[in-house]
Formats: sequence, C-alpha cells, structure tokens
Amino acid sequence: MLIVQKFGGTSVANLERIRAVGDRVCKSRAEGHQVVVVLSAPAGETDQLLRLASEISAEPDPRECDNLVALGEQKSAALLGLYLKAQNVPCVSLSGWQVPILTDTDHGKARILQIDPERMHRELHSGKIVIVTGFQGVSETGDVTTLGRGGSDTSAVALAAALKADLCEIYTDVDGVYTADPRIVAEPKLLKAISYEEMMELADAGAKVLQTRSVEVAAKHRVPLKVRSSFRSHPGTSVVSENESLEKILVAGVTLNKNESKIAIRRIPSGQGVLAKFFAPLAEAGINVDMIVENLGADGMTDLAFTVAKADLRITMKFAESVAKKLGAGLVEAASDIAKISIVGLGMRTHAGVAYQIFQILADLGITVQMVTTSEIKVSLVVAIGDAEKAVRALHTAFGLEKDA
Amino acid sequence: MLIVQKFGGTSVANLERIRAVGDRVCKSRAEGHQVVVVLSAPAGETDQLLRLASEISAEPDPRECDNLVALGEQKSAALLGLYLKAQNVPCVSLSGWQVPILTDTDHGKARILQIDPERMHRELHSGKIVIVTGFQGVSETGDVTTLGRGGSDTSAVALAAALKADLCEIYTDVDGVYTADPRIVAEPKLLKAISYEEMMELADAGAKVLQTRSVEVAAKHRVPLKVRSSFRSHPGTSVVSENESLEKILVAGVTLNKNESKIAIRRIPSGQGVLAKFFAPLAEAGINVDMIVENLGADGMTDLAFTVAKADLRITMKFAESVAKKLGAGLVEAASDIAKISIVGLGMRTHAGVAYQIFQILADLGITVQMVTTSEIKVSLVVAIGDAEKAVRALHTAFGLEKDA
Repeated sequence: MLIVQKFGGTSVANLERIRAVGDRVCKSRAEGHQVVVVLSAPAGETDQLLRLASEISAEPDPRECDNLVALGEQKSAALLGLYLKAQNVPCVSLSGWQVPILTDTDHGKARILQIDPERMHRELHSGKIVIVTGFQGVSETGDVTTLGRGGSDTSAVALAAALKADLCEIYTDVDGVYTADPRIVAEPKLLKAISYEEMMELADAGAKVLQTRSVEVAAKHRVPLKVRSSFRSHPGTSVVSENESLEKILVAGVTLNKNESKIAIRRIPSGQGVLAKFFAPLAEAGINVDMIVENLGADGMTDLAFTVAKADLRITMKFAESVAKKLGAGLVEAASDIAKISIVGLGMRTHAGVAYQIFQILADLGITVQMVTTSEIKVSLVVAIGDAEKAVRALHTAFGLEKDA
Repeated sequence: MLIVQKFGGTSVANLERIRAVGDRVCKSRAEGHQVVVVLSAPAGETDQLLRLASEISAEPDPRECDNLVALGEQKSAALLGLYLKAQNVPCVSLSGWQVPILTDTDHGKARILQIDPERMHRELHSGKIVIVTGFQGVSETGDVTTLGRGGSDTSAVALAAALKADLCEIYTDVDGVYTADPRIVAEPKLLKAISYEEMMELADAGAKVLQTRSVEVAAKHRVPLKVRSSFRSHPGTSVVSENESLEKILVAGVTLNKNESKIAIRRIPSGQGVLAKFFAPLAEAGINVDMIVENLGADGMTDLAFTVAKADLRITMKFAESVAKKLGAGLVEAASDIAKISIVGLGMRTHAGVAYQIFQILADLGITVQMVTTSEIKVSLVVAIGDAEKAVRALHTAFGLEKDA
C-alpha cells in the first residue's frame, strides 16, 4: 500500500518524539508499504515564530510572515530525515516548494491549487521514505505560502489525493474521534468509523481532532482517512464514505464551542438585500460568521441573530451598529456568555424527531435555547455558557453515546 | 549606486540588532542607492541547529543537515523583511532557491555555479530592498545546499558580481581590517585599503574578518569590497585592486594561528612520488594541509614537515606513520604546542630583505623558528606556542604597524 502518515506538533515536539515517529514510519515500511510522512512544526514552534513576527511588526506583512512561520515544519522534516538516515533508512525530506505543492497567493491562509506527484513517486520508487512539510506550499510567483492553522491535515489529505494513496493516517494525541470531549463527558465512546459528512460537521462544530478543510478534501477525492494516536497502538477511527460499513447510529457526536459570541439585531425594516447589507462588511473584513438565524415577522420587520468568534466581536458590533442605524433598525445586542452545542449524525436525515428530542431534553433540565440552526445531519444551538456542559452531558447520555460497559 | 550589504551573525543576533540593520539599510536607500542585503543566521543559531543534528544522528546526513542549518538565515531574512515592511519600506526576502543561487551538490561546502540576477533586478527596479539569505543555495537537483562556514561573505560577493554591483559592503563586529589582532597587539593600525592579494593571504593566515574564498571571488570579478562595522560609523577598510590608491607599505599585517599542529618525518629514502604518497590519503580524507616544507639531503634522504588543523592531528599521524613504515623512513614526530605566524605585504615582492629582517627580529628575542614557508607576498613561520604572542608584537612594531600617535 501507499500510505500518507501525518504527525502533529505534539508528535514531533522534541528529538525523543521525532525518533518515535521515525520508528513508527520504519515499521510501516518494513511491512512493505510505501510511506509519505507529513509533519507539523514541533509543538510551540509556530507560536514562537509568530511571537517574533509580532514583536518586530505590529501588523506583520503576510508574505514575510509566511517565510518565517514556514521554518517550523522544515525543522521537523530535516530532523526526521537525519534520524532515518542515521538508521540507514533511505529517505528524502522535501519542503512545500520542493514537492512542489502549488497554492494561490493568499498568504497565511493559502489554498492548494495543484500537487505534482512526480518527484514523490520517483523517490518512493527508489525505495525512499518521503518526508514532506505540512502547512505550506509555494505560489505561482515562487513565494512561500502557508495554509493557515491546522493546515498540515489538509496538506496530508491533498498529498494522499495527488498520490492516489491507499490510506491517509492522521496521527494525533488522542486515540481517535470521540462522541464528545472527554473533558466534559466522563465516558465518551470512541467511534470505529464515521462518515466524511459527519466528520465535517463535527470538525466545524469544534471537535479539534481534524481540520474541516482536510475532511472536505478527503471527501471530495474519496481519500480513506484514519485518525489514530501517535503514542499508543489503538486502531483509531476511520473516516469513510457513508456506504462503507458504518454502524447505524442516530447521533455520532456532541460538540461544545465556547469561543463564539452572539449578536442580535431586533426589528429591522425588511427590504431588498437586508441580510447582504449586514454581512458584506464582515465578508470584506474576513470575519467568519458561523450560525445565522433570521425570522421575518408579519409586520414586515425582521429579527436577525448570528455568531462570530469572540475575538471578532468588537469589530463586528461596530459594523452591525452602523448598518442598523442606516436601516433604522432597533437595538443591537451582543452576548459573549454563550456556548454553541452541536449534535451531529447521519441518522438525523431519516429520523424526523431528533430535534424534538433535543429540545425536550433541554427543557427537562430547565435550559433555555437561545438560537437554533439545523442542517441535514446537524442541529446546532446556543445556550447560556453556564448551562452548556450540563446540556452536553445530558444529550450525550440520552442518545446512548456512553462507552459500552 | 547598486550596493550589496552583508551583515554577519552578531549584527542580526536579536530583534534590536535586526532593527538597527534595517535602519542602516534604509539610510542607504534614502541616499538614493539600490540595496541588496545579504544576511547570516542570528549568532549562535547555526551552532544550535548543528547541535540538534548531531544529537539525532552521530554522522548527520549532509543533504538533510543542509535542510536544517539553512533555516537560520531564512529566519534573519524574514525578520528583516517584516521590520522593513512595518516601516512601510518596500522589500522582499528571498532564500537561496528563490534567487536562485545555483550550486553544485557538495552538501555542507557547496560552490556557487551561477546566480540568476533577473528576479533581483526586477525587484530592485520596482523600488524594493532585496533581502537574500547568505550561506546557502540550491543544487541542480532542487536540493538546499550550504556553502560552509563563513559562506555568507562568499554569497555577498558572488551576488555583487552577478548583479554587477558598484560596491559590496561587509558589515562585521570590527571596524575593518587591522594590521594585527587587537587582543595580541596593543595598538594595531586599521588599514584604509588593502589589495585583494594581501587580504587573501591575511584571511588564509587566520585573520577572521573575511572568508578567503569570498576575497578570491571578489578579486576574480573585481568587485569593490569594503569591510566595516555594523555598530559604528567608521569608514572601514577597502579591499581593492593593487593599482587603486594603495598606500605604499611594506607589510600589511601580522597574523597568528594557534589551531595547527606540526608533523615531521625524518630521513625518508627519496624516490619517485614520495610526497604524493604522504598526501594522497590526506587528500582523500578531506584533510587540509597548510604549510609544507621539504628538504632533500645530499645523501638521498629527505625530511618532510607539514601542518594540519589540530583536530585532524590524530588521523593524520595514523596515515603518516603507515606511509613512513612502508617507505622505511625514520621517526614520525608530532607537535601541537606550536603556532603559525604570517607576515603579509605586497611590498615584500620588491624588498628582498624582509625575510631576513623577520629572522633577525626573532633571533634577537631568542625565538627558534621551527618551519618557514614563503610566497610572493607572505612569510609564514612556526614557533613554539609560548613564544608566539611576543613574536607577533615584536614584528608588528618592527614593521611600523602601530597606530599613528
């Protein structure tokens, strides 16, 4: 098999761990597989480089900043290369530009345009382990780009797609994908398998085990994914197409996100393009809006509420108040003492009563639901932050996600 | 003017110093010059990376090692880029592969084959300061290479040659080129100008202010060089062609090198290729031989002595003893308690008595000269290490090199 193995920052945090990664990679090679290893920067290294950048510049230039932060993965890759060579294991470490991984020029959050698999195939063919830096590429103008936080997952999946790999393994510091955060729910279940769609919704809703974009790319190219532990030999969680041997479960997981704030605008006189008027300045400023709820009243006045990252609240309020004033709308209210809970599962598509069950469970606990949005396989809701963990535990139990005794 | 300005490791040791480099570069730009800045790694960074390499591998693979140690200059370059952009000064930082600086594949001590000035000219033309990583390039196989210790000087001079720059300034932590090491001689003179040839001999003999290879490249392409301080505004030392306004001085400098050991082989039966037999295994092992003295006696027996770096003494002895045994030679002796003194000056070519003067000065001090070699503009001699500094001071005074009162 051709396997892409991706190791995160904690897996390459120091020389001892890099040696452990090397040994694991060698084991796969000894089993007869061709291996491409994708590495993150050593834990803390990227933050340290970003700190340097912000010390020397109040608003770091994106191109120069990419040149700086790309050094972390290059360090991991070279060190693993040195270790493998010292074990007489043929290998070659490649930076994004050497593969090359071609991206657009959107420094700091570039998107991969194309990956040329030729050199990697050639090196694999000559018996080498190929080590590739995650998180980075090179633009058509020959400049170093980075993919943004968590981009190494996306690098790994995109490389697997370009190589037509048989499997892409994401090694991380947890055993796999859980039905809920173990810090909140005492005994969450480790999922053996999950669909791309569920994984995307879970990732988006705050399960930090995989970057959403990487799952999107995996789904698009049908790259078989596996999430497993760097430190233990647990088989992990497979992320696969829906029709592949998935257990029939109603809900795959419950997630909690405390990093968002809610903004609500009351009594907006409705009219053409009201929503666009509110979100245009946010889009322009690159502010991500997560949940959006709107409800037009019979009197022609509409209420709008949405959530943004807590860090974006202040600037978002400024934009929202300015638009509200122009439109003659009512009060603009903001709340940061909220949390978003998401319940994700393929089963929801065919089980109409899931939303009702959720509301009933929360009502029984006396918890007020402040906002609701739904998609085909997800229900997201906003509650007071103080109620959030209790709600997650109750939902987790009610949908039978506790670990089998 | 188009000026290449090179800053060494101590000049970019921390953010404060990088800011100072930025301000100096901006000043040159404000004066109407086009500026290409060549940077070393922050002081200590390359050593730290090499230490990591040797911790993870007893014999670090050269290709992977280059991938690792090249990160230091990339860090300096990106940080300077961030600083200049923060001051609204247009600039672009380029790694060796982005220029590109094409080298051979001799990792760890690659030689520059060719530099394409096109992108640099384009960026300069658009009003930017161009920042280039010193010490590194890219091979025809697309791999990162490094030029070896002190290679940043060579990068700067080679870039200046490729750009047909009007001047190449080497900024360092001293005010320029002195007639002797200020740690040994109380008041050495700072040279206003020195010829390429003298500078080469001085650099080779142990004056650490410039790498020999960089002076070779400058001489070959007639790149006007200037050595000056990063920290003070002293005009420094010009390194120029012989016919350019050089003061008529007999001796330009006296250097001391305590890092060599002497090996002497007595009474070697002479015959075809005796010298080659001794030096072949050293050349093969990459051991640099510095001074070589041989003297054939009338009885057909010859004495041979030479110096190598102290670190190479043990292995060199092994080779020498093995060859001596095969040839039926006499004793092989080694001495590490020696020092090499070199006296360099264009004036020697036309003043036959310089060597005599040197010997007389040392004889007056009761110092025994153990070995002598001479070139057109240099006399090198080996004395006991305990006599070395006294000898340097006496020679420095005798040739009138003390600072004018």
